[in-house]
Order: sequence, then C-alpha cells, then structure tokens
Amino acid sequence: MTFRDTAAGTLTTADAGSTVQLAGWASRIRNQGGVMFIDLRDASGVVQIVIDPGVHSEAVDIRREFCLSITGEVAVRPEGSENPDLPTGDIEVTVADLTVLSSARALPFQLDERTEVDELVRLQYRYLDLRRPRVAANLRARSTAIAAMRRVLNQAGFLDVETPTLIKSTPEGARDVLVPSRLQKGDFYALPQSPQLFKQLLMVGGIERYYQIARCYRDEDFRSDRQIEFSQLDIEGSFWGRDDVLATLESVMVEVVRDVRKIELETPFRRLTYQESMDRYGTDKPDLRFEMPIADLTGLFASTEFKAFAGAVEAGGVIRGLNIGGQEMSRSALDGLVDDAKDAGAGGLVWMVVEDEGGLRSPVAKFLSEAELAGVRSALEGAAGDHLLIVADRTRVAADVLGRFRVRFGAPEGHDELNFVWITDFPVFEETAGGDLVAAHHPFSAPVDVDEMATSPATAIAQAYDLVLNGSELGSGSVRIHDPETQQKVFEILGISAEEAERRFGWFVEALGYGTPPHAGFAVGIARLVSILQHEPNIREVIPFPKTQTGVDPLTGSPSPVDDYQLAELGIDLRPEVRAARAEAAEGEPPPGA
Amino acid sequence: MTFRDTAAGTLTTADAGSTVQLAGWASRIRNQGGVMFIDLRDASGVVQIVIDPGVHSEAVDIRREFCLSITGEVAVRPEGSENPDLPTGDIEVTVADLTVLSSARALPFQLDERTEVDELVRLQYRYLDLRRPRVAANLRARSTAIAAMRRVLNQAGFLDVETPTLIKSTPEGARDVLVPSRLQKGDFYALPQSPQLFKQLLMVGGIERYYQIARCYRDEDFRSDRQIEFSQLDIEGSFWGRDDVLATLESVMVEVVRDVRKIELETPFRRLTYQESMDRYGTDKPDLRFEMPIADLTGLFASTEFKAFAGAVEAGGVIRGLNIGGQEMSRSALDGLVDDAKDAGAGGLVWMVVEDEGGLRSPVAKFLSEAELAGVRSALEGAAGDHLLIVADRTRVAADVLGRFRVRFGAPEGHDELNFVWITDFPVFEETAGGDLVAAHHPFSAPVDVDEMATSPATAIAQAYDLVLNGSELGSGSVRIHDPETQQKVFEILGISAEEAERRFGWFVEALGYGTPPHAGFAVGIARLVSILQHEPNIREVIPFPKTQTGVDPLTGSPSPVDDYQLAELGIDLRPEVRAARAEAAEGEPPPGA
Repeated sequence: MTFRDTAAGTLTTADAGSTVQLAGWASRIRNQGGVMFIDLRDASGVVQIVIDPGVHSEAVDIRREFCLSITGEVAVRPEGSENPDLPTGDIEVTVADLTVLSSARALPFQLDERTEVDELVRLQYRYLDLRRPRVAANLRARSTAIAAMRRVLNQAGFLDVETPTLIKSTPEGARDVLVPSRLQKGDFYALPQSPQLFKQLLMVGGIERYYQIARCYRDEDFRSDRQIEFSQLDIEGSFWGRDDVLATLESVMVEVVRDVRKIELETPFRRLTYQESMDRYGTDKPDLRFEMPIADLTGLFASTEFKAFAGAVEAGGVIRGLNIGGQEMSRSALDGLVDDAKDAGAGGLVWMVVEDEGGLRSPVAKFLSEAELAGVRSALEGAAGDHLLIVADRTRVAADVLGRFRVRFGAPEGHDELNFVWITDFPVFEETAGGDLVAAHHPFSAPVDVDEMATSPATAIAQAYDLVLNGSELGSGSVRIHDPETQQKVFEILGISAEEAERRFGWFVEALGYGTPPHAGFAVGIARLVSILQHEPNIREVIPFPKTQTGVDPLTGSPSPVDDYQLAELGIDLRPEVRAARAEAAEGEPPPGA
Repeated sequence: MTFRDTAAGTLTTADAGSTVQLAGWASRIRNQGGVMFIDLRDASGVVQIVIDPGVHSEAVDIRREFCLSITGEVAVRPEGSENPDLPTGDIEVTVADLTVLSSARALPFQLDERTEVDELVRLQYRYLDLRRPRVAANLRARSTAIAAMRRVLNQAGFLDVETPTLIKSTPEGARDVLVPSRLQKGDFYALPQSPQLFKQLLMVGGIERYYQIARCYRDEDFRSDRQIEFSQLDIEGSFWGRDDVLATLESVMVEVVRDVRKIELETPFRRLTYQESMDRYGTDKPDLRFEMPIADLTGLFASTEFKAFAGAVEAGGVIRGLNIGGQEMSRSALDGLVDDAKDAGAGGLVWMVVEDEGGLRSPVAKFLSEAELAGVRSALEGAAGDHLLIVADRTRVAADVLGRFRVRFGAPEGHDELNFVWITDFPVFEETAGGDLVAAHHPFSAPVDVDEMATSPATAIAQAYDLVLNGSELGSGSVRIHDPETQQKVFEILGISAEEAERRFGWFVEALGYGTPPHAGFAVGIARLVSILQHEPNIREVIPFPKTQTGVDPLTGSPSPVDDYQLAELGIDLRPEVRAARAEAAEGEPPPGA
C-alpha cells in the first residue's frame, strides 16, 4: 500500500495533465457548496486540491489538520484564480480518489503563522507547533547546520567519537545532574557538563582529531537562554596550537552559513584580544555589525578640575566616552540614561549633546574647560546633533556600562549580516562585580605562563579564546595543559587543594603522565548558533522539544513522581520534608507511590 | 609554533631527500650505542627515525610512549635494512632537531598487539588501550559507519532531530534510569530507553523523515553484550509501510559496508517470515552464512511405535531433525549432546550416525521401523558419516535446541561473509520458556488485525520486523499504530489498564488524535553492527569508554559517592540500610559525605 508518489510542494504547471498521489494535512478548507478547496500541506509545501462533495460525500466532514491521501489530476488553475503567494499557485489537483488517513479533533490553537499563541500552550502541543512552517524550518536549519559541521570535519579526517554520558561527578561551576546507580547502591553517576576530560583522554589515547555533537547537561537555575540539556559541537586536536583551532572552526562556520543562509563568509574572521574588545566595545562579546567605539578620555582629563572625573582617576579608574549618534531624546530621557547607568553599577553618567555651532550642551559643561570640551568632541568625533555619553569609574564598570549603551543604541534591527569575531588572550582570572578575582575558565586551560599566573593573577593571560557572532558568544576553547606538573600547579593556584584535586581529578592527572601530546579544542553551542542564523531571539525555537525555565516539559508532564519500589531499588528515598511538602501540595492525596 | 607538517605513515621513497617535521609517540626504541632507532607512531602509521645520541644526548632518556616532535630528512634505508612489514619500511628519517613534547612513566602494560592484557586493566588505562592499532581501528570504523549512515539519510531528505534525554518515566520492559530533579524536588526524569514516543511525536508533527544516532539507556542486570548506555540509529518515516523501511535500511547498510569493509552488498536482502525462520533454523536470528536446515519429521513418525516420539506428538509437539554433517565424535561425546539438549530444556535427544552402507547407527534404531529410518535419512539428506540429531518436544523447544546445535556445528570461523536477512511477520505475543504468552514488542507496534490480536493471541501477527546479520539481531522495527482507538484497544489486550494507560501514555494517545499520519520505523544498535563488521566478539571493543558488566568505569571510578549537600539539594537521601552497608564496607571509615 502506498500513500503518495509525489511531494505536494513540488508541483508546477509542467505537471499539468499528469495523475499524482499526494498525502498530507488539510491546512485550509473552503467549502463552496458544489466544490471544496483544500490546501493540502506536506513537508515539501502546500498545493490546492479540489473535491466534488457530490462524488466524495465524506469530504464535508474534513476539518483542519485531518490527514489525507488523494489521487488526482494536476490542472492549470482557471485564469484569475492563481495564487501568486504560493509556489504551486498556478495549479491545483482535481481529486479522483480520497482517503481520510486519520481525523483531527478541534485544535487548541490555529497553526496559522499570524496567530500568536502562549508559549506554554505551544510546548504542551509541541507536535502541532512543529507543523507550523517557521518551526519546521528551524528544525530543518538545525539538521542542515549539523550535517555541514560533520561533513567538513569528516573530510578533514576527524573521528566522530561518542564519549560516555554516565560519568564521574566532578562538580565545578554549574551543578552536576546526578543519576543514582542501582547496581552500586549509594553511588551516583553524573551527566556531563561537557565531554572535556574524555576528549582530552582521547588526545592522550592518540585519537588526534576528535569531534562530536555532544549532549551536555547543566543543572542551573534556568535563565531564559539556557536549558538543562543542550548540544554542542565539541572538537579537539593534538599537536595543535590556537591557530589550528581557529582555522578549523572557520572552515566549519563557512560551510554551515553557506548551507543554511546561502551566504559566503570571508575568512579569516576578525580577531581582537580580550583587552582590545573590552577597551573598544566594553564587552568580550562585541556586536561588530556596527562600529560605535568606546574612546578612552582619561588622558584628556589628566588635570581636570571637575571633581567627579578627577576622583575616579585618582581611585585608579578611567574616563571613557561613547558617541551614540543623533537621537531624539528629551532632557528627561537623557537623565533616564543616568539612572540606567547607576542601575548597571556606575556611580553616574555624563551626557553631552553636540550643538549646531559645535558647542556641547551638558549639565556638567560649566565644570569643564574649553580644551576639555573640544577634546571630548574631537575624541568622540562628535558632529552636530550627536549624543555623547561619558562614564568615570573603575575600568570594568566604565567598560560594561558604555558597552550596554553601545548595543542599546547601535545594534541594527532586521539586519541580515553575520559578523563573526574571535576574542583571544582571555585573562586567567576575571573580576566579579564585587571586585574579587575568580577563575575565568575550567582548570584545564593552559596559562601563557604558569609562574605569571601565580605572581600576577590580575593580569595573567590564558591561551583561551571565544567565538562571537553578532554580539552573542557561540562558544569557547583553549589550548590545554598537557603535562601533569603544570596541571597540578594550576589546581593549586586556583585554590583547589591537593587532596581535593586528587579526589576529583587524580585519574585524569595520572593519564596526563603517559606522553600526552600538546592539544587544544573548542565547543560551539548548537542552539545559539542556529537561533541567530534563523533570526530567532529565543533558543527554544530551534530545540525540537524544549523544557520551560523550571525544567518542566508541559507535553509529557516530566519530571514526575516515581513509585516507592523504584526508589527502593536505587537505595534512595525522598527526604521526609519533601514527602510532607508533596503530600500537603496534593491536599490530602496520598504521597507519591504510597 | 607548529609540531609537525607531515603524517608519519604517509612517507614513501618518493619523499627521500625532503625535510619533514613529524610528531608522535615512541613505540619501539633500539639503542645501538652510536645510533638510536625509534619507531615513531602517529594516527596515520609508523615510521623509523634515526637519532645520533652524540648530537642529541637527551635521546637516551626517551622511553616507550614518550611524545616527540622531530625535524629530519627522509632517506632511503640502506639495502638489507628495509622492513617489509611496515608500509614505510623502505625509508627512515634522520633526525636533525628533536623535541620531547612530554614524557611517559612506566606503562602498566605493553601496547604491543601480541600482549594479552586483562580487560579490567585495559579499561582502567583505556587511554593507553586506545593507542593500540586494533582499538584505534575500531573507533575509526565506528566513525566511518555512522558517517555513512548520516550521508545516506541526509541525501534522502531525512532530518537529524535531537530528541530530549531527560524525559518522562514510562517504565516498560527494562528499567528506566532515573534522574532526580532539583527544581521539582521529589520528581524524577528518566533517561530514554529509546526515542520511540518522541520520534512518533515528530511524525505527528509533520517531520516526515527523521533519523538520529540516539543515546539510549537501559538499567538491566548487565549481560556481556549490553551496556547501561548505548547508541542506536533511530529512523522513522510518515506515509510509510514496511517495505519503505526495509529499502531505506538496505541503502544505509550498503553504504556502511562499502565504507567500512570495501564490500558491495546485494539488495534486496533475503526475507524470511518469523515462522519460516523458526521452522527452518530454530531461531529468529538465523546465521545464513551456512544453510544446514532443520527438517520436520513429525509426519514421518505419525504412526510410530517408538513411545518417546509418539508421546511428544500426542502432547501436541513435533519431531524435528538436523544433519550436522560428518563429525569426529566418540560415543561419549554423542551422549554429551544429549545432556546439552536436556540443559537447553529438551526432554531428550536422539542421535544417529549414517553408516557407510547407508544404515543408521543409533541407540534407538531398534525401536524404529526400516521405513522410518529410511525416511529420516532421506529427509535429512544423510550421507555416509553424517551425524543426525532428532528432538521430539514442544515446537518451541525442538526449534530452540536444534537451532543451537545448528549454530554450534555449522557457523563458519574466520569467515568474511556478511549475510543480512530480514525476519518479518513477528507474532504479537511470544511464548516464554514456561509456556506463557507475553507481548513480543513495545505496545506501539501495529498488529495486522487488532481483532485477531484479541481473539487469537497465540497466532496473531504484528507488522514488526528484525534485521539479522550473521546470526545477530542488529535491530528491529515496526509499522506503528496511528490512531488513538487502536492504540487504546492494544493497551487493553496487552493487559495495561485504562487507568495505567492514561497515567503513562495519556499525553501520547492525546497526540495521536490530531491527524497522525501512518508511519513506520526502525532502530539499529551501533555497537553490535560495528563489532560484527570489525570481527570483534565483544561490543566493548568498539565502544570508546565502555563500562564493566556491573556498570563501573574502572578509569574514573564512577559511579561514586556524592556529598550530603548534593543529596539535600535534590530532596533525596540514601536509605538507612544503604548508608549502614556502605559504612560497614568502609570498615570504620565515615559514611560518604559525612
């Protein structure tokens, strides 16, 4: 039994006169009494079918999203009834045989693109949501992207190696997702946060080129752009330095973008050091579809009498400025920017507007010398009507606040450009909002100089790099430590005690001792990349079956209670307070499994 | 900094005179005083390098598996010193610059292929085991196989869709691997036993062609050929019947075998119904590299006076025979077969040996008529010296016992043939060793006739099929149920109560109600397939980082204890008896996390 011989979306006037068998879904139905028109949709597209309900009386019962198989003759549409919005709009199929393959109950929402539906309802009926052309196109783009990645890397001699997902728990940064073992009661596996240690073991094992589209897990309090499980393109190479990684990733991105977006990227991608990026764009994820650089004005105000500026410099800070161009902003809107800057952590913000005759209008203009005002206008290339923003603060704060304004006022909308940039030479440690130093990477990234890492932590550089696209971090990588002595020294500098290092990573340090080659690698988040390529602001749009921000799947109702015997088999139990809370929540219903 | 510009295994006499940079591992070292020879191994192969320790004094410290980078000139080896066993054996590289990239401590075992090493030790040092050419070749074959699968399916328009792995627990057959939720304390996710329901949801969602190399999990008591996590090629198609699935899988296997084994398979593969396979080969996983069919002798003994045979037939059983050909077996060895048959569940076994003059020598010959003896010899095509085995028992037992003898005496050794066969028309229910009927499939396979399934369970047929290679089941599939009414009826016939069906699968039956297309699919175990292609008797040889039969990873020591605060965060605790047992096992050490 066959259901179809032709894809609906491929029919053209060249097929007129031929008999075809089609199968798909009734996406629009117009019953004009003596004749019914149905838009039949399959994965390839839509075609109009024409049914005579006098012949096919069962057709009158067809509702939206019924699944049909038909046989009929392709006919050119009568003049004037063509549909130029439809690729198949010049033809229609006159139905000879009709089979209803399955019926559909009333839909919870219309699939029509124009209908806005609450995301929770969409996720509950994700299988209907997937029938919407936009969501289906996102899954196709994702499949196309990973196929391109694999093709490039297979051709370059990389091995696709599946690393284990039930692994040893080595908590670091985000929380491990834990899995109780039944055969080793009381012990737990962890799901991997990344294949980091296993891919390094593959390098120890002489697998010189590795990649994998790897499923990873992070049990974080969900943010809008994170999921508890996610996929990354994970690669690693032996006898590699940084530039080998960058060149390989560029060749991957060129093919992905060619296949998904039909755009030819130019390589090599632009490269900025972390320091350059922070200084010029106020972020390590610069959106370079537009320039709008931050300028350092500290030297200009070296001997200023304006106390707010002088004080910041004396405290070791900087004075930086940003020209956000011509804006239609009222005085109160400008003062609102000052509040925004304070919310973002700055002590304040100075705004200036370049007047037609070249002067600067600003609440603080009277405190500044003519030379200083002229210097600001010159440094920020201020033309008449331009709005200038200045922050005097700690370096990190000034950069961050102006970086946010830069994106807010500069980022293009509805812009097709894809701007990739490498950010290199990341610091080993980064400063928190509170001013503390914390490790910026996992402890397996190689410092440029391990002694400098110990003696000058604030300025020590790691052989670590990120790939940024249109202001979003796509992924990161590093040259790895490949000898056990350096690894142990780095653990120590990072504040991991010898005992803790042995317990968590002893088996790994042991492995490094058997002739480990120099190696380096990278990981790219698949959903982030595809969401940008598809102009989707939310990564859930490119994930086949995403979970909500609290880790719930509204479709299946997972996670869900399990039976007591299942817990007993695993040697675990719910804590009494959890059991009590659940019983209370169930309002008198028995606790789960009882 | 570059470490190499040339792959060691690619050098030939054509490269003589050129300067190359190589990097790899010292796999053999011969120090002849004034000159050292090292076999330098990288992923591409091995080449001999020649070092003058007078120039490079550090070379004398090089031990096996040190990681080196060298620059040197390719030279044709002096006549008489060529190594015909090595592809690069006509040349060597005279070292000018030598860098020891990293050193290796004393190895726990030699990597030399000829060394047999305990598997537990190999797994503990899997990263060294991976350096052995045979294990490395297995990982390459695996990567090649899955690349071929993806290429075929991408070209055929299938979408690679990543289904979730933290899903709702719906226990069936094997145990779910459970994952406690931190954000929904007291609730659990399950890791998927297969993507079955999600791939069916994709069909509901209009993704007409789906595939995935899917990670799956089964918490079984480990058998030698099972792992708690494993990968399968998972496919599903809409508007598909069985033959669409079979043709697609055949096109996949043709490419996999071509790429991995350089063999051209002929298609279509042979097809046998389950009944034909059981009758003729005594198994639903027939090894068809050899024929040796089982013959039914029931009719021949319809009016026999031999009580053992007559009794079996009266009880509804059958009499079947197998010609295992000429064998060198003593009387006691033959009697040993009788014991083996009894161990396998049969009431007994009759053996006969065809004598030179055509007579049959057997302990039971005197109880059989001349016509019966002649009939046996004729039915089993017995030639002089052939050994014939006869079982009279329940159908299932006779088939099973003779099927085992068939493989034991017939299966070829060291045989390169790949014999694929489809087994179709599986029964809905199968008989256990105890004679009970149990569901043979998951409850989503379509019966040929749902009413027959209810009224004649013992003979009802499902639209289910297996792919078998050289006597091993590679995978199975079925046409799925695509309407909610049939699905509910099948749950009922399988003994799943309406309440249980609603609780476990309500969301899925709901989804079927929205115009679900007819669909069918399949899943192939990756490790099983690759292990057969690679002549590996054990699937662990083709798994990058396998676990032992008790689910332990000897390399990382997982699963392992976790801290109490981690358990508290998940709202769970170890059961007191587990905690006590662990404390006792630790002999006075504090319990984990205390």
